[in-house]
Amino acid sequence: MEKELKEALDQVIGRIAPFHEQAALDAKAHSDQLTKPTGSLGKLEEIAFRLAGISGSLWPDLSRKAVVVMAGDHGVCEEGVSAYPKEVTPQMVLNFLGGGAAVNVLARQAEADVYCVDIGVNADLEHPDLLSRKVVRGTANMAKQPAMSREEALQALMAGVQVAEELAEKGYRLFATGEMGIGNTTPSAALTTVLTGLSPEQSVGRGTGINDESWRHKIEVVKRAIAVNQPDASDPLDVLAKVGGAEIAGLAGFIIGAAANGCPVVIDGFISSVAALVAVRLAEQAKPFLFASHLSQEQGHAVVLESMGLSPMVQLDMRLGEGTGAVLCFHFIDAALKLMQEMATFASAGVSRE
Amino acid sequence: MEKELKEALDQVIGRIAPFHEQAALDAKAHSDQLTKPTGSLGKLEEIAFRLAGISGSLWPDLSRKAVVVMAGDHGVCEEGVSAYPKEVTPQMVLNFLGGGAAVNVLARQAEADVYCVDIGVNADLEHPDLLSRKVVRGTANMAKQPAMSREEALQALMAGVQVAEELAEKGYRLFATGEMGIGNTTPSAALTTVLTGLSPEQSVGRGTGINDESWRHKIEVVKRAIAVNQPDASDPLDVLAKVGGAEIAGLAGFIIGAAANGCPVVIDGFISSVAALVAVRLAEQAKPFLFASHLSQEQGHAVVLESMGLSPMVQLDMRLGEGTGAVLCFHFIDAALKLMQEMATFASAGVSRE
Repeated sequence: MEKELKEALDQVIGRIAPFHEQAALDAKAHSDQLTKPTGSLGKLEEIAFRLAGISGSLWPDLSRKAVVVMAGDHGVCEEGVSAYPKEVTPQMVLNFLGGGAAVNVLARQAEADVYCVDIGVNADLEHPDLLSRKVVRGTANMAKQPAMSREEALQALMAGVQVAEELAEKGYRLFATGEMGIGNTTPSAALTTVLTGLSPEQSVGRGTGINDESWRHKIEVVKRAIAVNQPDASDPLDVLAKVGGAEIAGLAGFIIGAAANGCPVVIDGFISSVAALVAVRLAEQAKPFLFASHLSQEQGHAVVLESMGLSPMVQLDMRLGEGTGAVLCFHFIDAALKLMQEMATFASAGVSRE
Repeated sequence: MEKELKEALDQVIGRIAPFHEQAALDAKAHSDQLTKPTGSLGKLEEIAFRLAGISGSLWPDLSRKAVVVMAGDHGVCEEGVSAYPKEVTPQMVLNFLGGGAAVNVLARQAEADVYCVDIGVNADLEHPDLLSRKVVRGTANMAKQPAMSREEALQALMAGVQVAEELAEKGYRLFATGEMGIGNTTPSAALTTVLTGLSPEQSVGRGTGINDESWRHKIEVVKRAIAVNQPDASDPLDVLAKVGGAEIAGLAGFIIGAAANGCPVVIDGFISSVAALVAVRLAEQAKPFLFASHLSQEQGHAVVLESMGLSPMVQLDMRLGEGTGAVLCFHFIDAALKLMQEMATFASAGVSRE
C-alpha cells in the first residue's frame, strides 16, 4: 500500500509543467511599455511575470478562486502545548461551514469559495459541505511516538492531491491554503527545526497566545519529539510522518496537486508555509507556483519563507491561520493582472519616456 | 491676505472632532467576542477600533471612496534631480483623466473614484474632469530661492481643504492621497530633513530611478536648498513654503479638510507621508485620521511614518506614487469593517473559549 501511494504521488509530481520562461519575459516586456517607471510597481510586477510563467499566458484568467482549509487534531495536545481545548477544532470546522469564521468573511470579500476538509479531526463530523477525507482521528502524541505512520502521511498527501484535482476539475484556477488544528504550531515548529536547521528556540513561537512558561514547555516538547523519533532530515516523508500533522500533510499534497494542474497557490502563515516547505522538499518543481502572503507573528515563519526564496506581501501582525492572510492577498493577485491588462502604454497615452 | 488664509485654516483645524475613545473600546469589546484568539487579526483589528473611534460607530459606512491625486511641478528640476523630463507631469495628468494610469486601474478594482487636481502644474491643462486649482505654475527653484511664498503655501493648503470639503459634501467617506510631480522626491527629502532631523543622506532616496552620481547630486541640492532658505523647523508653514511643493501643500490641506469632515485618510508613499507629516505638524488633531499603507523603497519613508506613530500594512517594494499603495489598502479597510460586522461570536457559533 505504501509503495502504491508513493508511486501515485510521484506520478502527480511528474505532471508538474516547467515554468514558461519566455512567457515571463514577454510579460516583463509588456510591463515595461506601461506608463510607470520600470519596476516601480515592485512585487506586483513580479507577481504578474510569475503568473505568466506559470500559465504561459500574459493575463491568465484566475477569476475562480478557492481557499482550502484543512483541519486536523494533534495528539501532542496531551502535553499541554495549546491555550485552547482540542474541542475547538471540530467547533471551528462547523463555524467554517456556517460561514462565520474570519476566513469566510475575507473569502466573500475576495469573491472566493471556502472548502473545508476534515483530514484528521478527532471527532465525528457531518455536514453536506464538508469534504470528509479523514486519514486519522487526530495524530498520535509525537512526544512519545511517531505522529503518523509513513503510510498515513502518504494517505494524507494523496488526499490533498485529490482535493486539488477535484477543485481544478470544477474550474478553480487560483488557490489559498488554510488550516485549523488546535496544537498545530507545535508540529510546525518541529518540522521547521528538522527541515531548516533552526533550533527549537528559534522555531517555536507563541501560537495563538501562550506565556513564557508555556513557551519554554513547548520548546521542551519539540526537543523531546525529535529525540524520541529521530526523523531523517534528508527524507521529507519521514519527517512529515514522525513530527508532522494530517492537515500539514494534506496541504503539502494539495500544493503538489495544484501545481500539477497549473494553478498558483497563495500560502498563508506559519503552518501553511511549513506545509509548502514539505511540498517543495518532495517536489522542487512546485516552487514557482507558490506565493507568500503575510508574515505572521510566529517567529519561525520568516526563515521558512526565506528557505523557499519567498517574500511576504503584507505585514499585518496576524496570527490566526485559516487562510486569512492568504485570501487577503487575492486582491493583490487580481491587482497585478488588472494592471497588466488595463494600464495605458507610453505610446497610447502620449507620455514621454526616461 | 496671508492673515485671512491662516485664519481660515485655523478655523478648519478647530472643526476636527476629538477621537471617540469609548467607541474604540466598544469596538474592541465586540471584537473580543468574535471566533478568533484576541488580537489574532493584528492590524486589521487596530484599523477597526480606530475607525470606530473616528466615526463614533462600530461599523461606519465607508463604501464611498475616493483617491485624490494632486499634481504640481518643481522649479528644482532645473538642477537635474529627476530622470524624467518635466513634461511628464501634465502628460500623466491627462493619463489619470483618461483612466490609463496605475492608480486608475487599482481604484476601479477597489470601487473608488479618482479625482485629479491641478494645483501647480507648469502647463495649461483643460479637461472636464480636472479639478483646476492652480496656485502656482510650478514652484520656484528652491536651490536658489523659496519654492513658494508663505501666501502661496497657504493658498495651496486651503485649496486642498476645499477639495476635501467638496468631496465630503458629495458623500465620500474614505480617502486615499496620491500625487504626481516630476522632481517631487527632492522637496519631500528636504522637508523630511528639516522636520524630522534626518540628514540629507538619510532623507534622499533614488526617486523613480537614478544612479549613485545623481543620488549624490540630489543630496547636494537638498543641502543647498536648506542653506539658501534657512527654513525654521518650528514653523511648519515656513518649511512647507521654502522647501516644499504645491501638491505636497495641497495634500496636507486635504488631510486637514478630510479630518475636519470626519473622514479617515489612507496615505500613500514617501511624498504623501511627508504631506501628512506637514498636516500633523499644523494640526496634531488630524493624526488619528491617518492610516499608513505601504512602505515605499524611498529610504526616508520609514522614518517619516514612525515620526507619526504609523506602521505600514503592506510591503510591496512600490515606488510609483499616484496613490497606488494607498488604494490597494482600501481592501484592508473594507476587510477590517466586514470582519467586525460579519464574523460569528463564540456564543453564536458554539465555540469554546480559552
